[in-house]
Amino acid sequence: MNKGVKILLTSALGIGLLTGCNQQADSKDNETEHKAMAAETSTTAVIKPHEGLNQEPTPLKIERVGPAEVNVEMTSQITDIEIDKGKIYKAWTFNGEAPGPVVVVNEGDTINFTLKNMDPAIPHSMDFHAVHAAPSHDFSNVEPDETGTFSYPANNPGVFMYHCGTAPVLSHIANGMHGTIIVKPKDGYPTDKEIDREYVLVQNEWYKYNDLEDFTNGVPSHVVFSTKALKEGDPNTNGDTFTLKEKPLLAKVGDKVRIYINNVGPNEVSSFHVVGTVFDDVYMDGNPYNHMQGLQTVMLPASGGAVVEFTVTKEGSYPIVTHQFNHATKGAVATLKVTKTGEDDGTTTEMSH
Amino acid sequence: MNKGVKILLTSALGIGLLTGCNQQADSKDNETEHKAMAAETSTTAVIKPHEGLNQEPTPLKIERVGPAEVNVEMTSQITDIEIDKGKIYKAWTFNGEAPGPVVVVNEGDTINFTLKNMDPAIPHSMDFHAVHAAPSHDFSNVEPDETGTFSYPANNPGVFMYHCGTAPVLSHIANGMHGTIIVKPKDGYPTDKEIDREYVLVQNEWYKYNDLEDFTNGVPSHVVFSTKALKEGDPNTNGDTFTLKEKPLLAKVGDKVRIYINNVGPNEVSSFHVVGTVFDDVYMDGNPYNHMQGLQTVMLPASGGAVVEFTVTKEGSYPIVTHQFNHATKGAVATLKVTKTGEDDGTTTEMSH
Amino acid sequence: MNKGVKILLTSALGIGLLTGCNQQADSKDNETEHKAMAAETSTTAVIKPHEGLNQEPTPLKIERVGPAEVNVEMTSQITDIEIDKGKIYKAWTFNGEAPGPVVVVNEGDTINFTLKNMDPAIPHSMDFHAVHAAPSHDFSNVEPDETGTFSYPANNPGVFMYHCGTAPVLSHIANGMHGTIIVKPKDGYPTDKEIDREYVLVQNEWYKYNDLEDFTNGVPSHVVFSTKALKEGDPNTNGDTFTLKEKPLLAKVGDKVRIYINNVGPNEVSSFHVVGTVFDDVYMDGNPYNHMQGLQTVMLPASGGAVVEFTVTKEGSYPIVTHQFNHATKGAVATLKVTKTGEDDGTTTEMSH
Repeated sequence: MNKGVKILLTSALGIGLLTGCNQQADSKDNETEHKAMAAETSTTAVIKPHEGLNQEPTPLKIERVGPAEVNVEMTSQITDIEIDKGKIYKAWTFNGEAPGPVVVVNEGDTINFTLKNMDPAIPHSMDFHAVHAAPSHDFSNVEPDETGTFSYPANNPGVFMYHCGTAPVLSHIANGMHGTIIVKPKDGYPTDKEIDREYVLVQNEWYKYNDLEDFTNGVPSHVVFSTKALKEGDPNTNGDTFTLKEKPLLAKVGDKVRIYINNVGPNEVSSFHVVGTVFDDVYMDGNPYNHMQGLQTVMLPASGGAVVEFTVTKEGSYPIVTHQFNHATKGAVATLKVTKTGEDDGTTTEMSH
Repeated sequence: MNKGVKILLTSALGIGLLTGCNQQADSKDNETEHKAMAAETSTTAVIKPHEGLNQEPTPLKIERVGPAEVNVEMTSQITDIEIDKGKIYKAWTFNGEAPGPVVVVNEGDTINFTLKNMDPAIPHSMDFHAVHAAPSHDFSNVEPDETGTFSYPANNPGVFMYHCGTAPVLSHIANGMHGTIIVKPKDGYPTDKEIDREYVLVQNEWYKYNDLEDFTNGVPSHVVFSTKALKEGDPNTNGDTFTLKEKPLLAKVGDKVRIYINNVGPNEVSSFHVVGTVFDDVYMDGNPYNHMQGLQTVMLPASGGAVVEFTVTKEGSYPIVTHQFNHATKGAVATLKVTKTGEDDGTTTEMSH
Repeated sequence: MNKGVKILLTSALGIGLLTGCNQQADSKDNETEHKAMAAETSTTAVIKPHEGLNQEPTPLKIERVGPAEVNVEMTSQITDIEIDKGKIYKAWTFNGEAPGPVVVVNEGDTINFTLKNMDPAIPHSMDFHAVHAAPSHDFSNVEPDETGTFSYPANNPGVFMYHCGTAPVLSHIANGMHGTIIVKPKDGYPTDKEIDREYVLVQNEWYKYNDLEDFTNGVPSHVVFSTKALKEGDPNTNGDTFTLKEKPLLAKVGDKVRIYINNVGPNEVSSFHVVGTVFDDVYMDGNPYNHMQGLQTVMLPASGGAVVEFTVTKEGSYPIVTHQFNHATKGAVATLKVTKTGEDDGTTTEMSH
């Protein structure tokens, strides 16, 4: 496998990628950095300017400034993320979360976007899958300690990925720079009136720390779901990723639940499934036109999204998984707890996956 | 790779899984078992209470007891399965088959389900993707030598996976506890009248014997199709998996053939394709609403199903594959033989994949 | 992993595959060949009769001979393909290209197909996914230095894979024998009038040279897009695969662009995405019936195709990727350059992926 990798890294693309990577390291302290790079344990691969850095999460700023215009301000920053019990990943993030905060706009909105790059060492950028834009300009790099502003329309309803688009893109995504933007359809979904609860779930993989070779040729060490707040003040705010099994999502017996699901990869596809139910309605990539019914499992490409809706008929715990069970085994399990009242009744779940 | 795995197994989820695994082993003879666990050859990883155990397949019991009510009784048991020529896998099974027998019910049926756990050592359970149920109660464990009964409705038509849902789920599925339940749509499929032949095919992977690390991080050693009887008395009963290439499915020139296909994983997606034809009609997950036409290949998520229908116009042999050809190379090839009469005329097929 | 492979290769299927492989080698010079086989560097695994062979590309012959009848003549031949800067792969090809030339016919056409096998050592064959045929006869082997003719109808519109179907099929596809056949729908696509530009892109993987073990159990060293001429005289003729990032596809501001995309594998699925836009219209497998809207990313099974259409609103460079970013990192990036005139204005692209 090493051989294949070496061949790859001497390719045109590979050189570009590695150069990008080395520039980050070389700009400060070559000798220390190279030693760090050579070390086998992932925790030592933190690049020099990020050592000891753990920037406080910055709240997402989103402000409607017109009937079809919103200002969105986000940061790129280096923040410790607990991706598993006791396992800290010094993530490259948007706003100090990985996945980043959910951005919600309306179909037809123009987004005035500001990226404040708080990373002292590396340029970052923003690629919203939801918008029409010229990537070479509108998704371009914002240098360390600088701020960039961009403007583009979000004309398609749906559940879209966003991510850093700076080379090497795979490193920026795999290190944590990904999230979800939801564009609400102007005529709603045909099933809007039936919905009792809404959640946002994001699936992503983690690999060896900042290890482009592992990102490129390895298998993920963790595959996880995170829940994100859909609205300001939502109680389900940024639940810790790895405790989604213990801190369940909630619903009431008889509820029709909607999940906005987005698989941000960076590499793997997802087979999204909720145990104990069948999806009544599914909208692929969240577009109302792409309607399917009665699915047991939704196939999500890397970066793909969906709106899935299902009804829970009995009290109990419903595991949420990717049915690619090697990935569920690596963490991609959440729990939906269904009680009489819709509040957590303090009972423990009886089932583990 | 070992490092990644070790990190995983110290995670909250990993510990749960390993504990589950060790409990099975530790309850009998630690020393022998641990030696077995450490051995490199897969055949020695049979857990102590399963050594020498090869329970006779138990016929599926299914009985209609009302216009919308069926009793289904199944077993969980340990039975040797020949997954390749001369290669025996002491599988954890439903009814002594892996995949298990096909269960066929009607849309709207209530299923009164009994699971008789004949495994002397390990609890098992049943998770039907076809039903609405509270997993923490309705899919709960049945202890060794005990029997559990459950009742739930099957209100969605389609081709659904079933599997053991006992932790570690990946081990239970990968060791053989999976199968297909078909819920016939109450208004049928729009194309019902055009269909001349129907088959059920199930795709699954095999890995190193009862090796959770290989299940989680490895690549499958075998990927196979099995055919299953759709109706009682069907001549295509439980064809040996690995000889599906030599013992072909049959059709007559001009037939429109329907295949109920289900990819039970546990880990891989499937690109289902029949060489020499194009699918006239496809119903994703077997729901009549999810109709597609003219597909060359159907994308199936892990656990996903479909009804695919196609017409065979000439005598000859038609390989059936997943077009992920590394998996076809590992066994996922069946043959459909088309003759003038629809009976096997004894000619050999000329093509191999 | 080696163990798994050895087990595999003693299986019924594996023996068949290896036998097929060895026959090619054994027929000439066992000792030299076996030494070559044993060598670790991929360049020495060229089989003896192919050593030094580099057959000039042969133009595709396609001639309409009736309102619903076309003659197509292709070659199978051994030709050096530059799959990356300075990296030559002595590919098994159709017509000296890998992927092979695009074949375009009309829905309802009968194809009279001739395969001229210029390979001195190995039989080859042609499996068109677009046609109805008996594979055991119509896709059968053409021996070295011989010519085979076949006839079959292409009754389904769409974007279909073609490939060599000779055992071991995985080796024939992975060594380069794949391509795309487009069957134009007789009533067109509903969106035909909106389209300003059309391109054909084919995604495929490369592995260690002619290494069935790596094809079966490895990860690709390269994943690439190639563009192909849709019509005779098209300026975008057979662009070098690895420079698609530097030699961009072109469009004018405001254009609605159609891409016929086909993922020929052999093993991996694709998450096809164009940065900076959303797909207005998608036809799965290119069939007008399978219409989706507003997708960010299209899920393509191995061998699957699609017609995707999108509008570019601003000048700049738009990367085209599979959003399985490990694969994009291995090469699967093309660029669409959007200028005021639709001609290349000589500016360099600012973005790299």
